[in-house]
Amino acid sequence: MDFLSDFLTLFLNKLQSPTLGFLIGGMVVAALNSRLTIPDPIYKFIVFMLLIKVGLSGGIAIRNANLVEMLLPAVFAVVVGILVVFIGRYTLANLPKVKTVDAIATAGLFGAVSGSTLAAGLTILESEGIQYEPWAAALYPFMDIPALVTAIVVASVYISKKRAAADEALSKQEYLSKQEYHGKERGIAAASRSKPGGKVSKRVEIWPIVQESLQVSALSALLLGLALGILTRPESVYESFFNPLFRGLLSILMLVMGMEATARLGELRIVGQWYALYSFFAPLLHGFIAFGLGMIAHFITGFSLGGVVILAVIAASSSDISGPPTLRAGIPSANPSAYIGSSTAVGTPVALALGIPLFIGLAQALGG
Amino acid sequence: MDFLSDFLTLFLNKLQSPTLGFLIGGMVVAALNSRLTIPDPIYKFIVFMLLIKVGLSGGIAIRNANLVEMLLPAVFAVVVGILVVFIGRYTLANLPKVKTVDAIATAGLFGAVSGSTLAAGLTILESEGIQYEPWAAALYPFMDIPALVTAIVVASVYISKKRAAADEALSKQEYLSKQEYHGKERGIAAASRSKPGGKVSKRVEIWPIVQESLQVSALSALLLGLALGILTRPESVYESFFNPLFRGLLSILMLVMGMEATARLGELRIVGQWYALYSFFAPLLHGFIAFGLGMIAHFITGFSLGGVVILAVIAASSSDISGPPTLRAGIPSANPSAYIGSSTAVGTPVALALGIPLFIGLAQALGG
Amino acid sequence: MDFLSDFLTLFLNKLQSPTLGFLIGGMVVAALNSRLTIPDPIYKFIVFMLLIKVGLSGGIAIRNANLVEMLLPAVFAVVVGILVVFIGRYTLANLPKVKTVDAIATAGLFGAVSGSTLAAGLTILESEGIQYEPWAAALYPFMDIPALVTAIVVASVYISKKRAAADEALSKQEYLSKQEYHGKERGIAAASRSKPGGKVSKRVEIWPIVQESLQVSALSALLLGLALGILTRPESVYESFFNPLFRGLLSILMLVMGMEATARLGELRIVGQWYALYSFFAPLLHGFIAFGLGMIAHFITGFSLGGVVILAVIAASSSDISGPPTLRAGIPSANPSAYIGSSTAVGTPVALALGIPLFIGLAQALGG
Repeated sequence: MDFLSDFLTLFLNKLQSPTLGFLIGGMVVAALNSRLTIPDPIYKFIVFMLLIKVGLSGGIAIRNANLVEMLLPAVFAVVVGILVVFIGRYTLANLPKVKTVDAIATAGLFGAVSGSTLAAGLTILESEGIQYEPWAAALYPFMDIPALVTAIVVASVYISKKRAAADEALSKQEYLSKQEYHGKERGIAAASRSKPGGKVSKRVEIWPIVQESLQVSALSALLLGLALGILTRPESVYESFFNPLFRGLLSILMLVMGMEATARLGELRIVGQWYALYSFFAPLLHGFIAFGLGMIAHFITGFSLGGVVILAVIAASSSDISGPPTLRAGIPSANPSAYIGSSTAVGTPVALALGIPLFIGLAQALGG
Repeated sequence: MDFLSDFLTLFLNKLQSPTLGFLIGGMVVAALNSRLTIPDPIYKFIVFMLLIKVGLSGGIAIRNANLVEMLLPAVFAVVVGILVVFIGRYTLANLPKVKTVDAIATAGLFGAVSGSTLAAGLTILESEGIQYEPWAAALYPFMDIPALVTAIVVASVYISKKRAAADEALSKQEYLSKQEYHGKERGIAAASRSKPGGKVSKRVEIWPIVQESLQVSALSALLLGLALGILTRPESVYESFFNPLFRGLLSILMLVMGMEATARLGELRIVGQWYALYSFFAPLLHGFIAFGLGMIAHFITGFSLGGVVILAVIAASSSDISGPPTLRAGIPSANPSAYIGSSTAVGTPVALALGIPLFIGLAQALGG
Repeated sequence: MDFLSDFLTLFLNKLQSPTLGFLIGGMVVAALNSRLTIPDPIYKFIVFMLLIKVGLSGGIAIRNANLVEMLLPAVFAVVVGILVVFIGRYTLANLPKVKTVDAIATAGLFGAVSGSTLAAGLTILESEGIQYEPWAAALYPFMDIPALVTAIVVASVYISKKRAAADEALSKQEYLSKQEYHGKERGIAAASRSKPGGKVSKRVEIWPIVQESLQVSALSALLLGLALGILTRPESVYESFFNPLFRGLLSILMLVMGMEATARLGELRIVGQWYALYSFFAPLLHGFIAFGLGMIAHFITGFSLGGVVILAVIAASSSDISGPPTLRAGIPSANPSAYIGSSTAVGTPVALALGIPLFIGLAQALGG
């Protein structure tokens, strides 16, 4: 009962947050046939600014962290980030009528980390007087960035395979005439045509696609920011420029995504229940997996139980900040209404109202 | 004498303000044939940023206001905002050789509200020890936004009527061949061709034009900001992003408007005296109308005399902040030199140096 | 030995600064074939923002300075700024295989002033207890802006002369057919064709080229900012908008320049040693010239020895802030790797670690 009222309060507060307010505003604007637009160069620059900021903040956090001490939990964070995407790929994506790219993007968002959920977890841990390593919060980029990169790569591989299959079907009829056209179209499926002579291999070679995904503008900006954050000292420009502009630019991106979402909202009507189901159970499942791995680190290296809870909260949270711009740019064909709606409307409230108390209770029971 | 020196000091200070400095800078740059330009997508984005900020600040002010208590003054503010545009439409616009769209835009600017004039009024009221309701300053968006929206709609209706008349004149000669071309050209005059068969109605249907005006990018951004300000809680992103960037982006818009104004300054030479005449009397007339309506609220609901003065000051002020970007985007054919020049060079000094002392004296005489 | 370790520490710190970090980041991104791009309208707007800020800060400094008292040192600062460009034009540019436009741009950068080198100089003067005029630091725009303007004008004149020579050579074969094409191409060489009839004069008329250079977007923005800074009161918008955004926008410009530099790095391999030689001796030479002129002011108007040191430090420093965006936009054909590399890798460390102690020691020896 208490959980339900907490849940509803959180849900209503979320609807009034600038992030979601601008998203809904964009949807209303589009529904009313307004001619409001954000010029394309501005949109591209906003995405660049957001992604380089996500990368920079992750990189700065990693540079300032004690890498030796946090090695095992950091490796587990990376493992969970990657695993979450594959869980979504083989559960949500296989539910009836769910589009695979939408499911992969949603899984990427659930693998990415919400700073505000993490902050809530830290606050509750402190109020309960549970000890944790000061570097534990710095585990977040180790899960956040691998999850987003994995989602984009997995989506690229999926799209390439689908295209290769379409090519093969096509090739039986009119292979020669169309080959050149498809080659020009994207260049992505090039690997599939490495064996000449009309015989397209059934297996798509994955490595060239991974490499290509990483060269895409979106991931380049993210990884560039990460590298600059780790290797240089961008704090002055981060604090004075990239960070203060972040929330405002995000709200404009949300507006653009809202305007686009209106047209694609209908797609979700027939599959909405599957997203609700996934969004309810995924945060808890991801949290328990991370909790289990955290306990292994607890027994091997003495990782604190508070740290284990933090790792679980990071895994349970789904990103409303770093995720949307990255996925929007990295998997442009995925429906933003699917992943943002799932995370904001169900995933985040579940993680906050159900996940955090659960993991803390579990840690207290185990810690005796 | 004292008034004259006050007036001149204010006038000279205005010329050094960044807003006017950049406007004049733009005019000089253009006069010197510089190839300096602001790229078009940037210009469009700056207009969007300015308008959504004007809307947000109005919306936040309305949400935080006590709507029940301020109902009657707020309704009067809306009435004055709309009335001011129609006064300009039927006085200034009918003076010899004054262009109607320029006059409507100027009236819109005089209906809109200057935050700095309002602040001056509040400061003087406090130093005189005159009481007023704390929510009285929040009346400004109730006059500001209706005035700007009315000006844009009235200008659209005027342009459509003119075009319909031109169409009709044309139709007598070559109706069939040209109809399609004009339909493509703008789509705005669609209503006028609702009755097929070569017979164009003399009356333009107004409602579709109003609807169309509201869907235009400029008003959409303004109204979207207003709705987000009222319905969501955008304070964090407003304070950290839209508000701090406002003055800087406005200065760049002023630069662009200055570069364009050079070419159109000549247009004003033959009509400059009419703008000076209007700009001198309009603030006082608008202020007295608002003062009269405020007195009605004083007798009906006990609206304080200080509040009546504030309503009059709001009406007397002409916008140098929210107005220019809105009118520039909403009535692109109007000459910015006309409305910005009128407001800055004459209207604002009159409101400050003549209007405020007049209304305060009147209130003190009435309050006895 | 101490100098060498100081030098290396400074060099390594420089590599981690955001400015250079983003430059190198851009080079790496381009080398890895990323498809990351900054849209062109954004790039143009960033350049505009940077240049108007450089102009504004110079203008504000000049307006707040005591122009009568600082007249002679200010004139000497202008002289040194211009002289430095001509020194580079007739030394570095004449070294084997050095491209003339690259050399002119590099000389412009060495004539421009580094705020951080100046700050270091002031700090050391204060710690040594050497007196100087409070307005001495305000001498910097008197050297900075003339150096950059001179470099751009000298480069334009050089390019026009080269083009006129090419035209003349061409004209012997096919003058009539090509003239129109070249006229369209740039319009810059118009002066050279002022005498009609197939006889092209050997001397290019310089004044039209100077005028044209000043109308180019880059210099217009710089000079507009300067004029606004001197004549209006843009402090509020400068402090709240142009200044806070400066470092962030500069870092993005550096990223773009880095992405472009990769392709042109090879050009420098055969001439790198000449740039290293110039960059080592130029700061000291420029500093000594300024020191000598400062001593003249010392004997004529009583300019303090501390002030003389500041003038020398200003001359020895090379800009890493105002220079790159101005030169990038004003001399687009110059290779940014040449001038940024020379200044950052050699010029600035030499000025800091060698120049400052030298000039202070000299002043102390002279001041007894």
